[in-house]
Amino acid sequence: MIIRKSALLGAALLSPALAALAKQRPNIIFFLVDDYGWPESSVAYGDEVYPRNRQFHTPNMERLAQQGVLLTHAYACPVSTPTRASLMSGMNAIHSHITNWVSMAGNQPSDAVGGKNGAAVYEELETDIFRRPDWNINGLCPDGPLSEGVNDVQAATPMVRLLRDAGYYTIHVGKAHWASAGTPGASPYNMGFLVNVAGTNAGLPKSYLGTDNFGNKPELWNMAAVQNMVEYYGQDIFLTEALTREALKTLEEPVRRGQPFYLYLSHYATHTPIQKDTRFFDRYKKEMGLDAGQSKFSSMVEGVDKSLGDVLDYLEAHHIADNTIIIFMSDNGGNADVKAKGGVPHTQNAPLREGKGSCYQGGIRVPMMVCWPGRTAPGTRIDTPVVPEDLFPTILEMGHVKKYTTSQEVDGKSLVKLLAGKPSDIDPQRPLFFHYPHQWKWEYKSEVDFLSTVIVGDWKLVYVMMNTVPGQRVQDGVPFELYNLREDIGETRNLAAEYPEKVAELARLLGERLRGWNAPMPIVRATGKPVPWPDELLK
Amino acid sequence: MIIRKSALLGAALLSPALAALAKQRPNIIFFLVDDYGWPESSVAYGDEVYPRNRQFHTPNMERLAQQGVLLTHAYACPVSTPTRASLMSGMNAIHSHITNWVSMAGNQPSDAVGGKNGAAVYEELETDIFRRPDWNINGLCPDGPLSEGVNDVQAATPMVRLLRDAGYYTIHVGKAHWASAGTPGASPYNMGFLVNVAGTNAGLPKSYLGTDNFGNKPELWNMAAVQNMVEYYGQDIFLTEALTREALKTLEEPVRRGQPFYLYLSHYATHTPIQKDTRFFDRYKKEMGLDAGQSKFSSMVEGVDKSLGDVLDYLEAHHIADNTIIIFMSDNGGNADVKAKGGVPHTQNAPLREGKGSCYQGGIRVPMMVCWPGRTAPGTRIDTPVVPEDLFPTILEMGHVKKYTTSQEVDGKSLVKLLAGKPSDIDPQRPLFFHYPHQWKWEYKSEVDFLSTVIVGDWKLVYVMMNTVPGQRVQDGVPFELYNLREDIGETRNLAAEYPEKVAELARLLGERLRGWNAPMPIVRATGKPVPWPDELLK
Repeated sequence: MIIRKSALLGAALLSPALAALAKQRPNIIFFLVDDYGWPESSVAYGDEVYPRNRQFHTPNMERLAQQGVLLTHAYACPVSTPTRASLMSGMNAIHSHITNWVSMAGNQPSDAVGGKNGAAVYEELETDIFRRPDWNINGLCPDGPLSEGVNDVQAATPMVRLLRDAGYYTIHVGKAHWASAGTPGASPYNMGFLVNVAGTNAGLPKSYLGTDNFGNKPELWNMAAVQNMVEYYGQDIFLTEALTREALKTLEEPVRRGQPFYLYLSHYATHTPIQKDTRFFDRYKKEMGLDAGQSKFSSMVEGVDKSLGDVLDYLEAHHIADNTIIIFMSDNGGNADVKAKGGVPHTQNAPLREGKGSCYQGGIRVPMMVCWPGRTAPGTRIDTPVVPEDLFPTILEMGHVKKYTTSQEVDGKSLVKLLAGKPSDIDPQRPLFFHYPHQWKWEYKSEVDFLSTVIVGDWKLVYVMMNTVPGQRVQDGVPFELYNLREDIGETRNLAAEYPEKVAELARLLGERLRGWNAPMPIVRATGKPVPWPDELLK
Repeated sequence: MIIRKSALLGAALLSPALAALAKQRPNIIFFLVDDYGWPESSVAYGDEVYPRNRQFHTPNMERLAQQGVLLTHAYACPVSTPTRASLMSGMNAIHSHITNWVSMAGNQPSDAVGGKNGAAVYEELETDIFRRPDWNINGLCPDGPLSEGVNDVQAATPMVRLLRDAGYYTIHVGKAHWASAGTPGASPYNMGFLVNVAGTNAGLPKSYLGTDNFGNKPELWNMAAVQNMVEYYGQDIFLTEALTREALKTLEEPVRRGQPFYLYLSHYATHTPIQKDTRFFDRYKKEMGLDAGQSKFSSMVEGVDKSLGDVLDYLEAHHIADNTIIIFMSDNGGNADVKAKGGVPHTQNAPLREGKGSCYQGGIRVPMMVCWPGRTAPGTRIDTPVVPEDLFPTILEMGHVKKYTTSQEVDGKSLVKLLAGKPSDIDPQRPLFFHYPHQWKWEYKSEVDFLSTVIVGDWKLVYVMMNTVPGQRVQDGVPFELYNLREDIGETRNLAAEYPEKVAELARLLGERLRGWNAPMPIVRATGKPVPWPDELLK
């Protein structure tokens, strides 16, 4: 269990040998975990160790935390594709209009999901208050000839292509989920990866079990059946382990050649389906007495932790740990709305409120660590907030890719100086915007659906779009909720009535940003008009 | 339509510029077509143009024939996996005991096929004369740690791994089919490929149609559904075209880096299912009035031809044609036993007898061309017979890989000198062995099943194993058939009775070889004993 104080000593710690190494182009490993909540590890990102932290056994995350820096205020989008697209494009999700996860099948909006066989189906119901907004339902598309004539996508110069063109050996292992089937963005090869294992249009695996052929059986198959895994069919192996083995095999070539590599090891875990990783299950079920769902989920977390450990071991064994950057994070908050996960629904990210899909903190505040030998100060913390789009310029700068052009406007800022503990242009008070103008599941849930938010320092405004519709009254019944995150990490006390000027200030900020990027907004069925920009409500 | 005389002028044609290029390590493209028969193109490999040649419009194969050399007596194994494994291991299929295609599911012999959903099922029937032999039913496995504990495989040092370790950028696009699911050989990554698109345990595509998602639909799916093709789902595109686009995209990296590449473009076409490539169908159906099956098949052939043309165009456009070797061949004879292909069954390889699965010429004599700029004499023919295992040392020598060790004994001989028209140790009279101790389909077919053969120059002995069983009388009713291939390309006149000494000579050769490699032999159900080695029948 690790709790450390903030430190900004990175630069001072540079030894001469490490300083020399830093001139080489480093290897970069992006270790992405799926639906993995902020308190769901034995590494404590908060100011205290919460009960939830004590449940998990993640020694390798602790090991990485000791080697690198914790980003205690790392944010992601409320769901998967927007975060992943932001990493790849450098655009804020509001700007790219990729505000929701993309369905596996093309041209099918995922808002209010149902359907089967991987095809999300949207049907407007008479009881719907909103119609869905106009967003890029097919996700991200690499720019250039491939994107010509492709509809409902955001075309962008992919970060990985720039890395590859600069000489990096770029490897994709695991979940892609940037785009729907039938569009170029669905293939990691088009994003600039030289190697692809298992990356498709799917946002989850049909099964984590080798004995299920990862879903490649007649009685199981849908488009989420995992590809490129034939050698493990029928074997008693969990997908997390199989992907790790694949990742380490693919490193053989660049390591042998001495070519810098970018490994995007994007685990499907801990996304649903919640399944038992038998290697670790007993610790949680038998020893700790957790319920079956939480035991399964915890075993999946420990499987990810073991994968991280295997990667760290590999780097040390091949003497490249000193020149390899590791970025560890989750793509959104932990899922707090799935029965199979066990526990008490909507509390699994405690002390944070709600989870995946929501603009409350449980949906967007995520675990994150960076280990950059010679740059990050081991065992320290950085409290400045960061967002996914920051990783675009950050990773390119890490890779010494200085001159490049993009067809999109990049919204993120490089974190390189911040990570190194140097004076940085990352203002801790810069406004952060999250926007979820969608309904996540069949049933409307007021703490998840149709929310928008801006965070400035300790202050957070939540725009409850449902409360702009006459006759609809959810939660506190007001369109604006104001929280002080420092004093109230769980967003339990709405201070909007006490601080009307702060509400107005933040509503204007949010309104300007949404309007400026022509954000997708839900359409009020009764009027046919979009939900107003938040600052339109001010007077 | 191309008919040329033999020529051995390659070396003399070298210009100084080409000679310099030849010192660089060349790029190598192995363009493999599936189930594609010897007379099924407008390139005539025979001494005359047969009616079958006139059916097909393959201008790019003609173009390649003009640039390179025709190998008029190229042989392959009667079915797919043995040929593919021989290319990868350098072993004769009899030696590796990979004598049949491997089923998609692991540990399931494919002899006498049935079943569904990609799982071949073998059930011994009371009416069976033979039990299946003991062969490597899971196929080829890369040697080293991965092969430990894997059963029913041949472990070998894969040719592509040697190429990769020597600095080649190795790319797999299309059909792999070296091994069954659940074994390492099922993944091209384990064979030494750095890039894999669509290569799995499958020997055929569930569908060639993008509109079918290549089989990735609930109503179609089995393990033959093509992987890594998500970007084309729902599009009106034929798999051959999609694979070609993928292949050319993957060349971008090595071409940009100036790294020599090995591209194994292994088309699923023209394997079943026989489907319409709409781009070319009308030529055969409307203009030529062929039946639906032949029109579909011919459209698939022309799709392959177009792919070849696109590759040739790419090489020219990128100014690398002069330093790129192209090897074009088929993995076995054309399928002459599938209704969907139309025409008259068992005649589609005319003038050759029978087709895929058979040790008669239609099953094993295949189209082959090699274009090696500066080495092969354009527009010439080589009549010396060659076999798949020759490509192992050939390709390594082409790639300047001179010193290497293999865990297996390599049976093939380098064709480099032969291709260059230089004096070579490839004896035109060397004996060639083919062995199919299996039943291909549910129903026993005497001209396909349980045959073994040796070819020495013009002479060919066919060992009809069924005729060694008392009471069984098929074809001519004798265990040995003798043909003179020069005088009787169609194997219509059994000369065994006229030339008993030739029969004895060849039977001894075949017996020695089978015995020496402990060849899999069918087991006679009535006695429980294997079919005798052919020379055991001699006195």
